[in-house]
Amino acid sequence: MTPEQMLDVAVAEARKGLAEGGIPIGAALFRAGGELLGAGHNRRVQNDDPSMHAETDAFRAAGRQRGYRSTIMVTTLSPCWYCSGLVRQFGIGAVVIGEARTFYGGHDWLAEHGVAVTLLDDARCVAMMDEFIRTSPELWAEDIGE
Amino acid sequence: MTPEQMLDVAVAEARKGLAEGGIPIGAALFRAGGELLGAGHNRRVQNDDPSMHAETDAFRAAGRQRGYRSTIMVTTLSPCWYCSGLVRQFGIGAVVIGEARTFYGGHDWLAEHGVAVTLLDDARCVAMMDEFIRTSPELWAEDIGE
Repeated sequence: MTPEQMLDVAVAEARKGLAEGGIPIGAALFRAGGELLGAGHNRRVQNDDPSMHAETDAFRAAGRQRGYRSTIMVTTLSPCWYCSGLVRQFGIGAVVIGEARTFYGGHDWLAEHGVAVTLLDDARCVAMMDEFIRTSPELWAEDIGE
Repeated sequence: MTPEQMLDVAVAEARKGLAEGGIPIGAALFRAGGELLGAGHNRRVQNDDPSMHAETDAFRAAGRQRGYRSTIMVTTLSPCWYCSGLVRQFGIGAVVIGEARTFYGGHDWLAEHGVAVTLLDDARCVAMMDEFIRTSPELWAEDIGE
């Protein structure tokens, strides 16, 4: 499975979130071989749950795992500090990122700490977040604590 | 409310978690004035949910908030990178920590980034984690991704 194919799963999650009236960020956790362990999307609005960013939702969906070194976290948007901390603490080996134009999170910090970071600069992801931030600036500020 | 009184709430949560068969770490989010916004405990075992550390459970219990600068996250144990990332991303202004002897997380990093860190070195917290790590080393390793 290519990074682009894995990103498609995260994009589908982001669109699902948008259709639910939520924040359009999606993520998925894969094994290196391509097996999907779990996928999810931001649930702040839908579940009234500020703790469920796309990455934490995918991590939860993957259930309890013993070791994450060979897993890949794929996300439509550069991971915020909260989600970057998740990746570092659990030793997730690689991160594939849709885009980092509309929000620049902690992926450089992850790279410094040995995480393999792939930034795809995907036009669908940029367009989705551009539109969301333009139409819902307050909700976006809430979701990143600004 | 003193840091010690706030810690009592987190300790009660940790004990609740232990009584449920879970990992004995508790946390609570307060307003600076002492109002309790939410409390929680690690739910890996009870809910089969690896995303619910004590701090994220307390954060979730507090519901959606607009701004965390004047809030205080109180936790029985030094926050791991995941929970430290939560504190940094959402701009939680202060962290009160029961102990950092049995696990040393990201609180120095938080202090470097302007978070007011209070380390209480509480004997109850140390004893609880010492006993837990001694009797459940594999579960503990799983919870911190080691």
